[in-house]
Amino acid sequence: MSVTAAKGFTAAGIAAGIKESGGPDLALVVNDGPRRAAAGVFTSNRVKAAPVLWSEQVLRGGEVTAVVLNSGGANACTGPQGFQDTHATAEKAAEVLAGHSAGEIAVASTGLIGLTLPMDRLLPGIEKAAAALSEHGGEKAAIAIKTTDTVHKTAVAGGEGWTVGGMAKGAGMLAPGLATMLVVLTTDADVEAPALDTALRAATRTTFDRVDSDGCMSTNDTVLLLASGASGITPGRAEFDQAVQSVCADLARQLIGDAEGASKDIRIEVINAATEDDAVEVGRSIARNNLLKCAIHGEDPNWGRVLSAIGTTKAAFEPDRLNVAINDVWVCRKGSVGEDRDLVDMRYREVRITADLAAGDESAVIWANDLTAEYVHENSAYSS
Amino acid sequence: MSVTAAKGFTAAGIAAGIKESGGPDLALVVNDGPRRAAAGVFTSNRVKAAPVLWSEQVLRGGEVTAVVLNSGGANACTGPQGFQDTHATAEKAAEVLAGHSAGEIAVASTGLIGLTLPMDRLLPGIEKAAAALSEHGGEKAAIAIKTTDTVHKTAVAGGEGWTVGGMAKGAGMLAPGLATMLVVLTTDADVEAPALDTALRAATRTTFDRVDSDGCMSTNDTVLLLASGASGITPGRAEFDQAVQSVCADLARQLIGDAEGASKDIRIEVINAATEDDAVEVGRSIARNNLLKCAIHGEDPNWGRVLSAIGTTKAAFEPDRLNVAINDVWVCRKGSVGEDRDLVDMRYREVRITADLAAGDESAVIWANDLTAEYVHENSAYSS
Repeated sequence: MSVTAAKGFTAAGIAAGIKESGGPDLALVVNDGPRRAAAGVFTSNRVKAAPVLWSEQVLRGGEVTAVVLNSGGANACTGPQGFQDTHATAEKAAEVLAGHSAGEIAVASTGLIGLTLPMDRLLPGIEKAAAALSEHGGEKAAIAIKTTDTVHKTAVAGGEGWTVGGMAKGAGMLAPGLATMLVVLTTDADVEAPALDTALRAATRTTFDRVDSDGCMSTNDTVLLLASGASGITPGRAEFDQAVQSVCADLARQLIGDAEGASKDIRIEVINAATEDDAVEVGRSIARNNLLKCAIHGEDPNWGRVLSAIGTTKAAFEPDRLNVAINDVWVCRKGSVGEDRDLVDMRYREVRITADLAAGDESAVIWANDLTAEYVHENSAYSS
Repeated sequence: MSVTAAKGFTAAGIAAGIKESGGPDLALVVNDGPRRAAAGVFTSNRVKAAPVLWSEQVLRGGEVTAVVLNSGGANACTGPQGFQDTHATAEKAAEVLAGHSAGEIAVASTGLIGLTLPMDRLLPGIEKAAAALSEHGGEKAAIAIKTTDTVHKTAVAGGEGWTVGGMAKGAGMLAPGLATMLVVLTTDADVEAPALDTALRAATRTTFDRVDSDGCMSTNDTVLLLASGASGITPGRAEFDQAVQSVCADLARQLIGDAEGASKDIRIEVINAATEDDAVEVGRSIARNNLLKCAIHGEDPNWGRVLSAIGTTKAAFEPDRLNVAINDVWVCRKGSVGEDRDLVDMRYREVRITADLAAGDESAVIWANDLTAEYVHENSAYSS
């Protein structure tokens, strides 16, 4: 399914020899039209990888013919050489796909920061990938962009006669703005670039931007939405936006579910906030509290750490009006002891925290995960 | 030496039965004068424990006769009952010390959030502590305020004929504004409350406020400075400020050295920043990056994670002018690969990270520590 679920797209995933393991490390997604409209959203980290700087330029044109994605190296903090390498990657893809210019080729990379890519292997890899392009290649493409991901991630939604499909990678360095990830969404709906942009920004704002595995923001985040128009159908705007939202939400949930070393997925809902921004700020503060993340790992409904995290924000609230529920048990009422904490059943993977600010009508949901010894091990032993 | 190093002070540390372990859990520090000037700095967390709310009021008077400190319970998020308990604690101390009012008694608590204190044990404990007061009691007081601290923390500085001494507790939940801690400093210098306040604020701003073990800010942070005037000497202002600064820096360094589960102490120096605020913001962003903290634990000089952390700040810098040294090896030059990372020797406990923003002349030092499986274990198994 993945990026080839929508008509008008071919894809491939191959081993180019970028990864030392010899595993799949290069993906190619091609839009065969008739339309080649595209929108993109990128990391808000001010230290941006070369492929992000390149693709931001490409997306300004609102047209993308193909996306080259590699794992095995982020091409971030690699100086002028890194940018030249990204440029050469786009040139090579344009040459292989014949009849297109490098300015229509988006590039995305993921892996270790601060190492230049082995171009002697990457460039021949693009030829190999082009030769392997297929209408059924979406799955292999999704596999080729994995780094520490334990599973590949794909999702599909759509309406009568049209489809939105997507693939994602991401397992750590997940933090809003965006979460660290590479995502490619495709659709055969006949939609122009400005409408794609609107749909994509609306969807990422409440999905990828509200996933926080470890508070660490990447240099390489890239989310692309490509439209081929091959279905010949132009869906209603609300319907299309909803399909994009649905695929993004599905993939975002998969990212959290595969977060490095995690044993719990934590759904944090902030309710009765004065503004949505307040709700998001409080949700993120809770999501990033290491002590709380450890407590959840230990299946300890430690609501004091939730209040402590809320207290560090600028959101509107009165300490003695705060209520907190963990798995629907209101363990904190009016800023003090509420229902018996022993009533909280935390055996399952999903843990729900509800923080009631009693200050308004707005709300937001942030997804996070627990902090485990496995996370420490994976990130102290693996240079990424 | 601790809080009884300065003349005019007595202290005690006893077991009142607040901790289930039966260990020391109640400390009393008394200023016998002739002067009873005092200054205090408290947590900036908006969810404040009852003893913080109480002591903030007491400190407004600029005069403190005694401080009652307990471990085994934070008396935070305990509602109106919690505040009544703090009030009763101060009343009891005033009664036992005869001739003083509760309004001169500061109270500080540390331990689990959200549990009310066992007043039936705490109040008799105050009588017991008063009976044990001694000019040599500083060490015992420092021991009685420990929670997960593996060692008690004391420091002393001073000049000709006068002394500043102090004790501190804190091992986790250390984050600026202040770091989570209880600290009592005493001096026999003859200094009035406004000058104490100036010295204390200047010292905490560059010491306790720049310690960050886990980015988690406590509800109970309290730093008090009491002056007895018993030396009869009024030191020069610069000399006195320097002594207070020195004791605070010493205790802050001890807090980081005893941070929960830590195997590395990380000294982060941000140089050539446009403003001191920029330097502090960048230093804290680096200090709180879980991925970097894991890498340091694994003795991996992963400078890409330093750049990634810098990129999330609003500080003035250009990505391609950033330089980063780890243990004095400039592994990142101009935002890209610098000296060979294999030259970095990370075997020792102290790790030095230097981030050069190349944007001005200001600098700041933040102290942090690594993230370990032991931290996760301690904070998932221990409800604090």
